[in-house]
Amino acid sequence: ILYFPCIFCPQTQQPPLTCIIMSKGTVVLAYSGGLDTSCILVWLKEEGYDVITYLANIGQVEDFDAAKKKAESLGAKKVFIEDLRAEFVEEFIWPSVQASAIYEDRYLLGTSVARPCIARRQIQIARQEGAQYVSHGATGKGNDQIRFELTCYALYPEVQIIAPWRIPEFYNRFVGRKDLMEYAEKNGIPVPVTPKAPWSMDANLMHISYESGILENPKSHAPAGLYLMTKSPEDAPNSPDVLEIEFKKGVPIKVTHVKEGKSKDTPLDIFSYLNEMGGRHGVGRIDIVENRFIGMKSRGIYETPGGTILYHAHLDIETFTMDREVRRIKQGLGVKFAEMLYNGFWYSPECEFVRHCIDKSQERVEGKVQLSVFKGQVYILGRESPKSLYNEDLVR
Amino acid sequence: ILYFPCIFCPQTQQPPLTCIIMSKGTVVLAYSGGLDTSCILVWLKEEGYDVITYLANIGQVEDFDAAKKKAESLGAKKVFIEDLRAEFVEEFIWPSVQASAIYEDRYLLGTSVARPCIARRQIQIARQEGAQYVSHGATGKGNDQIRFELTCYALYPEVQIIAPWRIPEFYNRFVGRKDLMEYAEKNGIPVPVTPKAPWSMDANLMHISYESGILENPKSHAPAGLYLMTKSPEDAPNSPDVLEIEFKKGVPIKVTHVKEGKSKDTPLDIFSYLNEMGGRHGVGRIDIVENRFIGMKSRGIYETPGGTILYHAHLDIETFTMDREVRRIKQGLGVKFAEMLYNGFWYSPECEFVRHCIDKSQERVEGKVQLSVFKGQVYILGRESPKSLYNEDLVR
Amino acid sequence: ILYFPCIFCPQTQQPPLTCIIMSKGTVVLAYSGGLDTSCILVWLKEEGYDVITYLANIGQVEDFDAAKKKAESLGAKKVFIEDLRAEFVEEFIWPSVQASAIYEDRYLLGTSVARPCIARRQIQIARQEGAQYVSHGATGKGNDQIRFELTCYALYPEVQIIAPWRIPEFYNRFVGRKDLMEYAEKNGIPVPVTPKAPWSMDANLMHISYESGILENPKSHAPAGLYLMTKSPEDAPNSPDVLEIEFKKGVPIKVTHVKEGKSKDTPLDIFSYLNEMGGRHGVGRIDIVENRFIGMKSRGIYETPGGTILYHAHLDIETFTMDREVRRIKQGLGVKFAEMLYNGFWYSPECEFVRHCIDKSQERVEGKVQLSVFKGQVYILGRESPKSLYNEDLVR
Amino acid sequence: ILYFPCIFCPQTQQPPLTCIIMSKGTVVLAYSGGLDTSCILVWLKEEGYDVITYLANIGQVEDFDAAKKKAESLGAKKVFIEDLRAEFVEEFIWPSVQASAIYEDRYLLGTSVARPCIARRQIQIARQEGAQYVSHGATGKGNDQIRFELTCYALYPEVQIIAPWRIPEFYNRFVGRKDLMEYAEKNGIPVPVTPKAPWSMDANLMHISYESGILENPKSHAPAGLYLMTKSPEDAPNSPDVLEIEFKKGVPIKVTHVKEGKSKDTPLDIFSYLNEMGGRHGVGRIDIVENRFIGMKSRGIYETPGGTILYHAHLDIETFTMDREVRRIKQGLGVKFAEMLYNGFWYSPECEFVRHCIDKSQERVEGKVQLSVFKGQVYILGRESPKSLYNEDLVR
Repeated sequence: ILYFPCIFCPQTQQPPLTCIIMSKGTVVLAYSGGLDTSCILVWLKEEGYDVITYLANIGQVEDFDAAKKKAESLGAKKVFIEDLRAEFVEEFIWPSVQASAIYEDRYLLGTSVARPCIARRQIQIARQEGAQYVSHGATGKGNDQIRFELTCYALYPEVQIIAPWRIPEFYNRFVGRKDLMEYAEKNGIPVPVTPKAPWSMDANLMHISYESGILENPKSHAPAGLYLMTKSPEDAPNSPDVLEIEFKKGVPIKVTHVKEGKSKDTPLDIFSYLNEMGGRHGVGRIDIVENRFIGMKSRGIYETPGGTILYHAHLDIETFTMDREVRRIKQGLGVKFAEMLYNGFWYSPECEFVRHCIDKSQERVEGKVQLSVFKGQVYILGRESPKSLYNEDLVR
Repeated sequence: ILYFPCIFCPQTQQPPLTCIIMSKGTVVLAYSGGLDTSCILVWLKEEGYDVITYLANIGQVEDFDAAKKKAESLGAKKVFIEDLRAEFVEEFIWPSVQASAIYEDRYLLGTSVARPCIARRQIQIARQEGAQYVSHGATGKGNDQIRFELTCYALYPEVQIIAPWRIPEFYNRFVGRKDLMEYAEKNGIPVPVTPKAPWSMDANLMHISYESGILENPKSHAPAGLYLMTKSPEDAPNSPDVLEIEFKKGVPIKVTHVKEGKSKDTPLDIFSYLNEMGGRHGVGRIDIVENRFIGMKSRGIYETPGGTILYHAHLDIETFTMDREVRRIKQGLGVKFAEMLYNGFWYSPECEFVRHCIDKSQERVEGKVQLSVFKGQVYILGRESPKSLYNEDLVR
Repeated sequence: ILYFPCIFCPQTQQPPLTCIIMSKGTVVLAYSGGLDTSCILVWLKEEGYDVITYLANIGQVEDFDAAKKKAESLGAKKVFIEDLRAEFVEEFIWPSVQASAIYEDRYLLGTSVARPCIARRQIQIARQEGAQYVSHGATGKGNDQIRFELTCYALYPEVQIIAPWRIPEFYNRFVGRKDLMEYAEKNGIPVPVTPKAPWSMDANLMHISYESGILENPKSHAPAGLYLMTKSPEDAPNSPDVLEIEFKKGVPIKVTHVKEGKSKDTPLDIFSYLNEMGGRHGVGRIDIVENRFIGMKSRGIYETPGGTILYHAHLDIETFTMDREVRRIKQGLGVKFAEMLYNGFWYSPECEFVRHCIDKSQERVEGKVQLSVFKGQVYILGRESPKSLYNEDLVR
Repeated sequence: ILYFPCIFCPQTQQPPLTCIIMSKGTVVLAYSGGLDTSCILVWLKEEGYDVITYLANIGQVEDFDAAKKKAESLGAKKVFIEDLRAEFVEEFIWPSVQASAIYEDRYLLGTSVARPCIARRQIQIARQEGAQYVSHGATGKGNDQIRFELTCYALYPEVQIIAPWRIPEFYNRFVGRKDLMEYAEKNGIPVPVTPKAPWSMDANLMHISYESGILENPKSHAPAGLYLMTKSPEDAPNSPDVLEIEFKKGVPIKVTHVKEGKSKDTPLDIFSYLNEMGGRHGVGRIDIVENRFIGMKSRGIYETPGGTILYHAHLDIETFTMDREVRRIKQGLGVKFAEMLYNGFWYSPECEFVRHCIDKSQERVEGKVQLSVFKGQVYILGRESPKSLYNEDLVR
C-alpha cells in the first residue's frame, strides 16, 4: 500500500484527492503528439511552466520524428523520444507471462503492463532534468491516471503531478473536442486533418485496446474494420503455422517456425515474431466488459496476438513441469498479481513480494511446447522438458 | 471430508485402502457393454454374486439395445438402461456453468461432472434392489475410481464396493488385453471384431476425452482423425453462426440462432444445440497435461463444444451483471469447486456448501449474450441485461 | 464496491473527494454531546442549516438526558436519542461472532461493528425527517469517516454528507482544541470543566478503544488506570467463574453461571452478562498496532470482555460441529468479512454475499461450551453437542 | 504433492496403502524406551531384522542413559541418542514463528513441527548405516504415522517403512496393553512399574500434548494435575515478569528480563528461557477439538509456554514493520503452511516454496517487543523498530 495522506498529493495533510497543487517550475509531460497532449503542452506553458516532452516507444505505430518536431515547434524546452521496447518485454511482459497474468479471467493486461514501464522512464527523466513536476493527459475516470501516478509517487515521492483533466480550470475550459480544436487553431497547434476514429485506442507492443465512443454500447458489435494488429480470422490463411517455443525459468528463450526452420532468440525478437504470427492468423481478439479500479464497468475490445500465444504456451509448459500443489499456490498469487497490475500497483511492496514469489516458482519451468496458430485460435500440439514431472511409466 | 477409517472401506478400523472386502450377495455393476465390464460381469458371477447391470445414457453414442441383450445373455439377473441426460444437464452441468468450473485453467471437467450423476443412479438402483454391493471397471490409477466411490459412500454409507482392478486375484489374472480376450472366448462373451483404438475414450453429452495408448507420449501430436464430436477447424464452414444465449440465475434458458431465428429452450435441447453448433465449427478442442488426484500427471485431449460456448457466454454475462467484489469472491469459490469436482467430492459437505454459495451469487446473472462460433473459436459480440451494472453515462 | 464518481459525493462527475458540496437545508448530525460536535452543531446553524441531533445509545456510559438538554439549548430543531443496544447485538455483533471476525489476527472490531448500526438509524431519521444532509464529527484521517459515509451512501444514495473536519473553512478555523474552546465560550456552549483525557476513546457495548495522544508513541506502555470496562487482571478475583454458553446456528442463546445456576437468554442480556463476567476477570485487553484503511499504521488499545469470551467459545463449538473442509472455506470468508467490516463495507454487495454464506455455514453450529474466566484469560473446559461430528469410537 | 503409486510404498504399482512390504535386513527403529517400542524392537528381531535404535532428544524429559541401556539389553545392534534441540529450534520452530503457524486458529503445532526434525535424522542414520528399513511405533489412526513417513519417503525415496501398528500380524497379536505386558515379560523386557497415565502424551521443547484415554470425552474437563510444563495460573506468581524480545528477519535474536537485566541470545537459550518464563506463569494452555488429517476429529490438550509468547510477540513486531498488503498475502501463505505442517508435508515442494516466500516476507521484521507474562496470559506492552512503518506524524 501507499501512504496517506493521499496518493495524489502526499505532501499535504489532507484526505486523498482534495487538492491538486501547482506551482511554477519544469514539467516532464508524457506527450503523444496528438491533439490533447499538444494542447496540454501549450496550456502548461501558458500557466508558466517550462515543459519537457517525453514520448516512449513501446512498440506502437507512430511517426516519432514528426512528434519530435511538433513538440519542438510548440515550445518544448527539451524533447525525449525513448525506445523502451526491449525493457518493456524483458522487465514487464516476461514477469506477466510467468504469472499467467489475466484480469477477470479474460484480459491479458496489455495496457496495464505498459504503464509502469512508461512512467518509470518519465521519472528517470524528471530526476535527471531536475523537474519537480510530471504531467499526463489521462482522464479522470480511467485506470491510467492511477497506474501512472502510483508509479510516479513510488519512484519519486516528492514529485508533483499535474493532471489537467482533473483540474477544474482545464476541464471546464475544454469541455468538448471542439474547444480543443479552437484552442489549437488559436495557438498554432497543427490540427489533425483526418477525422478522429469514433472510439479511442491504446497501442503498444503487447496489444491494441479499443473503447469508448460507439463501442460504449455494450450490446453493439465491434465494426468490421476495427482491428489493426490482427487479420480477421475469416481472411486469415487456410493453413496453420506450427511453432515451437522454448522456455527457461518460465520465459521464452527461443521460438522456431517448425516448417521454415526460422527462429528468434532475443526477448524483443521473440515477442515481435509471435505478434507477427498471431497477427497473421487473427489470434487474441476479445470483447469484454471489465471492472475498472474506480468501480465502474467499461467495455473494452482488445487484440493481443503474441501475448495470447505465450499465455497458452506458458500454461502448458508450467503444468508439465511444476508440482501440482506449488502451482495451486502460484495460481492464487497470479490472480493477486493480475489485480495489482490492473490497478497500477506494480511498484508497491506487495507486488514486488508477489513477483519475487512467482519468479521463485518458475525455476523448473523449462522445455519446449509445439503449437499451431490458425483462424484465431492457438492449439497446443505437444510438449517436452528435461524437468518434466510427467512419468510415462506411471501412466501406463 | 469423508470419514476415516478409509474412504474405500469405512466399515473397518484399518487405515485407508488396506483392505478390499468381498462377500456374496447382489452386485449392481456399472456396465458399458465393452470387453472389460463384460468380463467383470462373468467374473463376478464366477465369484458367486448375483449381478445386476446398469448402463447410464448420459449422451454417449452407444447401442443401448445391444448392450442390454449382451448383459442378459451373459447372465445378468436384471438389466437397467437409464436415460439420465436431462438430469445430467440440469443438476450437474448447469451448476458447473454457474461456477465457471475449470480445472487447472483449462479443463472443463466433462468426465468429472458425469461421475456423480452416474453413480447416484447406480446407488438408487442398489437401494431399490436391495443390493449390498456395487462394482465398476475403473482402473486403480485413475480419478474415476475415486469419484465413483466417494459418491457411493456418501449416498449409501453401508454399501460395499467391488473394484476388480484393485483386487489382486483379478488384476494378476488379467494382466493384458490378451487375457481378457481369452477369458471372453472361453466364457462365451462376444469378442469385439474391430480393433481397439490405440487410446481410451470417455464420451458423454458434455465432452469426449482421449487418453493413454499412443497419446501417452506428451510430445506426440494427436492424430488427425481422433476427434468425434467436433469437425476439424480446417474443414469447418467458412462463415460463422451467430447465436444469442439468454441467461437467468446464471444458467441458459434459451438459445437462438440469430439468422435462422430457430431457438431452443429446455436445458437438454439448449445444450444439445450448442453441442451441434460448436461441433460444426470445431469449438472446444484442447490438448493438456493435467494433475490427477492421486498425484501423477497425465495427458488428456478433450473436445467440449457446447460447454466451451457456455463457459465464454456465462463469463460475459456474469461480469456484466455482477458486482466486482462479489465476483472476486465467487471466483475463488469457483476454483475450489472445480478442484472438488475433479477430485470426486461432489457429494461432500464442503462441495454442497460451495454450490449453495455460488448459486446465491448467480441471482442477478441474467441477460442475453450474442456470440459467433467460427473455425474453432467463440467470439463474444455483445451483451444486454435488465440487471446490468454497466452505466453508459458514467463511461462517457 | 460502490460507484464512481466518488464515494463521498456521487452526484458529481469528479474524481473521488475533489469536492464537498454544501447547500442550505436540514442536517441530521451525529451528536455526542461533547465539545467537537457541539461546536459543529452551532457552526452548522451559523452556515444556515437546520440541525437535528441524533445520539445513539449503543451501550456507552453517557448522560443521555444532559446531552438532550444541551442539544436543545444550542438550538437543535429536534433531538433524537435512540436505544439501539438490542439491534446492535442481534444484527451486528451476532453475525460477527458467527464469522469469528478478527482483524489482522487480533482486533475484534468493536468500533467497526458499531458504525453501520449507528449510521443506519441516522439515515432512517434523515429520510423520515426529510433531511437531505447528514453530518458527523469524524476526522479526515481515520476509518470512521469512511465506515460512516459508505453506510450513508449505500442506504440513502442521494444524501449529502457534511464532514466539517474535511472542509477547509472548518478545519482551518479550528486548528487546535483551544480554538474550539474559544468558539464554545463565544457561542454559549458549555465548556467541559474536567480536563480532556490525554487520549481519545470510543465506547460501546462491545468494547472501549483508546488511542492517540500519549498512546501514539508505540513504545510507551499504556498507563495503569486506562481501562474502564475491565478490571486489571492483577486485581481480579483469585478464583475463576465457570460459565456454560449454549449456541444455536452459531449464536449464543443462553449463558449459565455453572455454580450460581443463574442464566440469561436474550441477546442483550447474554452479551451484557458476558461483559460483566469478562470485565470482572480482566478479559479481552489488547495493545496493538493496526493498519488503517487509508494506509497508515496506528496504535490502538482495546478491551472487549464479552466479545473475547464469545470469540473463544464460538470457535470451540464451531470446530466441534463443522466439517473440516467447510470450516476451511468459511475461515477464508471470515477473513474477508473482517476486512470489509473494518473498512466500512457492511452495506455492500460483497459483504451481504459473504454474510449470507457464513450464515449458511452456521446451520449445524449448536451445542454447549463450558469455560472459565480467570485473571484475563478464557479457558475452554469442555463441550457437547447434538450435532457433534466427534466420534469417540473412532478416536479409541 | 508426493508421488503415486502410494505414499506408503512407492516401489509398487498399486494404489496407496494396499500393501505393506517387509523383507529382512537392517531397520532403524525410532525408539522411545517405552513398552510399545521395546516390544517392537524384540518383535522386529523375531521377524529376522537387525535393529538399530534411534532416540532423538528434542527437549523432552527422559532418562536417555536408561533408554540406551535398555535398547542394548534387548539386542539392538547399535543405539543412537541424538541431541537435536538446537536444530529443532533453528530449522523448525523458527520458520513456524515466522509463519505465525497456527492450525485451525488455535493449535501451535508443537507435535507436528517436531516430526520432520526427528525423521530427518533417522533417515540420515539409515543412509549412513546402510539400512533399507525404518520403523516407528505410531498408530494407524493418527497424524504422526503420516508426518513421519512422508518425511522418510521425501528424503530417502527407496526406504521401506515398517509400521507394526498397521501390520495385521502385529496388531492382531497385540490387541490391548495386556498383550504387550505379557509379551514383555516373556521376552525379558522390563515392564513399567508405575501405572500408565490414563491419557497419552507427547513432549518436546515446544510443547506437551495430552490426549486419548479419559480425555477422549470432549465434555469432561482436564484433571487438575495434568499439566507438566506450566504452572496452574491459579498458583502462578502474583506479579508479572516483563520481557523484551528482539527480532531480526522475523526470528528472535535476544530476550531480556527487563527488571533483572538477564538476557539470552542463542536460539536454544532464548526458546528455553521463554519456556521457563511462560511455564512459571501458566502461559499457553489450550483445550481443543481438532480435525486430523485422516478426517476424524480428536480432542487435544496442549501447553506451549514459550511458543505462545513468541507467537504474540512476533505478530506484534510483524504488523509494526510489514506493509499491510504484503502481510495480507503472507497471512494466507501462513494458513497454508500451517496445514501442510500439520499434515506432515514439511518436505514437499509446496511447503518448501511457501517457506521460501514467507522467509522473504520477513526481511524487514525487526525490532523489539516488550511484553509481560502473568497468570496464563501474554500482554504486549510496547514495541519499537528501526524498520517501523509507523509514522507518528501522520497519526497526529
